[in-house]
Amino acid sequence: MKLVIGNKNYSSWSLRGWLAAKQSGLAFEEITVPLYGDDWDEAKRRDANLAPSSGKVPILWDGDAVVWDSLAIIDYLADKVGRDRFWPKDDAARAMARSMVAEMHSGYFALRGHMPMNIRRRQAQPEVRDDVRADIVRILQLWAEARARFGQGGPFLFGTFSAADIIYAPVVSRFVTYGVGVPGFAVAYMQALWEHPWMQAWIEAAEDEEWTIEQFEEASHT
Amino acid sequence: MKLVIGNKNYSSWSLRGWLAAKQSGLAFEEITVPLYGDDWDEAKRRDANLAPSSGKVPILWDGDAVVWDSLAIIDYLADKVGRDRFWPKDDAARAMARSMVAEMHSGYFALRGHMPMNIRRRQAQPEVRDDVRADIVRILQLWAEARARFGQGGPFLFGTFSAADIIYAPVVSRFVTYGVGVPGFAVAYMQALWEHPWMQAWIEAAEDEEWTIEQFEEASHT
Repeated sequence: MKLVIGNKNYSSWSLRGWLAAKQSGLAFEEITVPLYGDDWDEAKRRDANLAPSSGKVPILWDGDAVVWDSLAIIDYLADKVGRDRFWPKDDAARAMARSMVAEMHSGYFALRGHMPMNIRRRQAQPEVRDDVRADIVRILQLWAEARARFGQGGPFLFGTFSAADIIYAPVVSRFVTYGVGVPGFAVAYMQALWEHPWMQAWIEAAEDEEWTIEQFEEASHT
Repeated sequence: MKLVIGNKNYSSWSLRGWLAAKQSGLAFEEITVPLYGDDWDEAKRRDANLAPSSGKVPILWDGDAVVWDSLAIIDYLADKVGRDRFWPKDDAARAMARSMVAEMHSGYFALRGHMPMNIRRRQAQPEVRDDVRADIVRILQLWAEARARFGQGGPFLFGTFSAADIIYAPVVSRFVTYGVGVPGFAVAYMQALWEHPWMQAWIEAAEDEEWTIEQFEEASHT
């Protein structure tokens, strides 16, 4: 398998695809295509790795199969290595996990637009717009419910590390780097996720990355 | 099980959830909450059926489990009745199906915003904006590839009726009712989908619906 991703510092969807590939336990080659540079439009046209999605990342290549969306990558890999590695076993827990993952996949545009992932950033946001605040409140409600109802088996949203943590990992990064104030249960969850060895490896790579794109404020890509 | 949906004429995501419930083969009760009326905000606050999603439809209730997104409903039901009922068996086909379903779930905002589903509508759109045109072209490319590579076993995108048809059904409705010109292979596919007994039942119900909402142009709900 090979996984095509963008800049580790900025590409929230790449982080999700990469965590999914890690969680599969399968070996994969990592191909990074720096986004936002002058050469990006040209790269999109020329790089066959990016063709199936018209240039969006991440993309997973696996023999004849190509998967060009993070959520699709999660479920494609779950099909391959077993659903229980990605999703809670309990029906009610899995129903909630699938719903909140889908909600992130299709929504939270205020949060995504105004607090794009930027792992190197370390600066509290002085004011938070009302629509961004509403997204944050909704996410914290979902996290609280998941932890309270289904989180007994470990420190993650549904206890053990799951697709829900994979999908919300960039949100944890945003809350950390924009200094969003959160209640204690969320601090504990975010710390567990932040300290996960895969997150640490990604953060370290993001911090070492040479590409910077101060000219781009929007950094979320599907 | 019970499925909470919105107006059949306008609610494209409800159509998807409903087709998924049909495809599961399981019995379900249908609860319709008319959207857009004066009472809608009030209904959202008061109707316990809508609580988990803060008022968005569709929502599937199944014992302790609640699922509040169409794509999550598809995969929750696939978990319950078997994946092969919803997704192609072949890995490469399923990789593509999962990717194009996810792309619809998280994108095509120009098409969704400027051609909202309106089943009763029968009027060609005189001009199509460039961004809507780009969405249409991308969708037709995906349909063409799915049909050509994986559509041998039947008239639907991946041969037999699948999650991809469920997710793209409202797009077929838009292309029909807005009179979008499409190539022959797409005409044949759209006809097969339109004539599917479940689509016919939904269309008939939409045409009989009493609620109209000329005051709302936006009619897509997750």
